[in-house]
Amino acid sequence: MYNIDKLFEAVGAKGHVCVGLDTAVEYVPPLERQRAGSDAEAVLAFNKALVDSTFDVCACYKVQIAYYEEMGLEGLGAYAKTLRYIREKGGLVIADIKRGDIADTCLRYAKAHFSGEFEADFVTLSPYMGMDSIEPWLAYAENSGKGAFVLMRTSNKGMRDFEYLEISPDKKRVYHAVGDKLSGLAAAHCGKYGYGAFGAVVGCTERDEAAEIRKNYSNLFFLIPGYGAQGGAAEDAALLLREGNGGVVNASRSILKAWETELKKTGGDGSVAANTFAAATRGANSFAAEAARRAAIEMRDAIRVASKL
Amino acid sequence: MYNIDKLFEAVGAKGHVCVGLDTAVEYVPPLERQRAGSDAEAVLAFNKALVDSTFDVCACYKVQIAYYEEMGLEGLGAYAKTLRYIREKGGLVIADIKRGDIADTCLRYAKAHFSGEFEADFVTLSPYMGMDSIEPWLAYAENSGKGAFVLMRTSNKGMRDFEYLEISPDKKRVYHAVGDKLSGLAAAHCGKYGYGAFGAVVGCTERDEAAEIRKNYSNLFFLIPGYGAQGGAAEDAALLLREGNGGVVNASRSILKAWETELKKTGGDGSVAANTFAAATRGANSFAAEAARRAAIEMRDAIRVASKL
Repeated sequence: MYNIDKLFEAVGAKGHVCVGLDTAVEYVPPLERQRAGSDAEAVLAFNKALVDSTFDVCACYKVQIAYYEEMGLEGLGAYAKTLRYIREKGGLVIADIKRGDIADTCLRYAKAHFSGEFEADFVTLSPYMGMDSIEPWLAYAENSGKGAFVLMRTSNKGMRDFEYLEISPDKKRVYHAVGDKLSGLAAAHCGKYGYGAFGAVVGCTERDEAAEIRKNYSNLFFLIPGYGAQGGAAEDAALLLREGNGGVVNASRSILKAWETELKKTGGDGSVAANTFAAATRGANSFAAEAARRAAIEMRDAIRVASKL
Repeated sequence: MYNIDKLFEAVGAKGHVCVGLDTAVEYVPPLERQRAGSDAEAVLAFNKALVDSTFDVCACYKVQIAYYEEMGLEGLGAYAKTLRYIREKGGLVIADIKRGDIADTCLRYAKAHFSGEFEADFVTLSPYMGMDSIEPWLAYAENSGKGAFVLMRTSNKGMRDFEYLEISPDKKRVYHAVGDKLSGLAAAHCGKYGYGAFGAVVGCTERDEAAEIRKNYSNLFFLIPGYGAQGGAAEDAALLLREGNGGVVNASRSILKAWETELKKTGGDGSVAANTFAAATRGANSFAAEAARRAAIEMRDAIRVASKL
């Protein structure tokens, strides 16, 4: 059984939310940060609290390695421990690493991220160098069910620079060429719910293209960024789903910083003073975790409504 | 002064070789591997010996992070120490990390790889997501001279999948579009020898395209893979140089495994027994380091001859 099948089932049971643990230490409530022995420890404790509080209301987690590399080796220790924490609870985790290299090097990367200390259930990959930068990872799909999401059409402004280039003679775009190759790969490594072991990253910021993309790449499970801060709404994300499944929608800051948003709404301003109040009553990380849960549920329900589920 | 200017000067003084420290532990002489406390320690000791022996005959080093990630946190410790060792000797080092992400994330990556424990002089970047995945790194070019090499036309078989797609209406290829953008960036951040702070990765495997690429992207300094094992010769690499400079040519396995090649030539077979003989006479890492130096000099001279220097 591929992990993509497990993810399909998780979506059915718990909704479409992928909680993005792009945890900058600034997102940790200041009192907890002061208490912790180091920034990396503060991030790890915060992550654990949020994983506990959102576990039954999200399909999976995505951990963006950049936020941990930024803290050096100790940060990468917190990265490894975050992944392990999620996996030991029985959750699914996507390592957002966007690797792409020559085949020999990809074999090393695959070993690094599909086994050992940094083992994840899924990775993200970059297709620029071609399919021989994707295919080496597939041995792990067949041996241990591992999955990947390959960048196809992202959600950032710069996507228009190269992903959108029209290719002759048929006026399709570069991202279609990527999608076509991925769709072929998915057909050859197809899970029991009709989705390939490896899916694609497709942002929900471009409503006009969503229906066409969903229709033409029906065997690709989508990891969907661009929700919230980047402008995508539940209705946009729903257009990239198929029969209410086939995609997870990532949200990071809106969930990680939900505690700050709630404090502001209730008159607190996210300052140490306001946070001290919250901490004094319920403990700052537990307050952040409860706020994250509320944000995740709100997002889950909005996507369910938009998908008419 | 940009690091690209320092690299230009290093090429003038020491030749075009970039020693690729893609150090799999299998490349370490077996006796040294047995002696070391761990694989990561074996790799680090081997790297140090090779850096010492090649320092005056190569322009710079490139460290492929995949080979260290494969060994987990301890491997990344060896990665950090390898970078530091080269930089403390006054050498230039390229972190081969091929990152590419949304702008916020790139700022985190840039901090991770241009400062702190993993500080390098250059990084490699992937352009798929567009120029807002490249531009955030530029602050470090302006503040501390840092450089980058962005994937343009690589040397692997898969490059034909997407890099080679023809774009309408002018029938250029995707890699030209990347080169055009990079050339614009280089013009806006140009060093004192006429090369931009950020250059491009262009493989030397396609002789037919080399002259055109060198001519059209004259302000881009090239990091040139594909030499040796991947099929490129000194003459191919020379076509990507401009007036004898403007590029460094990477070689990894041919230098890292030169000790094995030499042992085989002299009747040894790379086995523990053969290596014991070499080790008994001169110590295995020092033997490997001397063989690496000979391989680097041979490559340096071949490129100099081919460039008519």
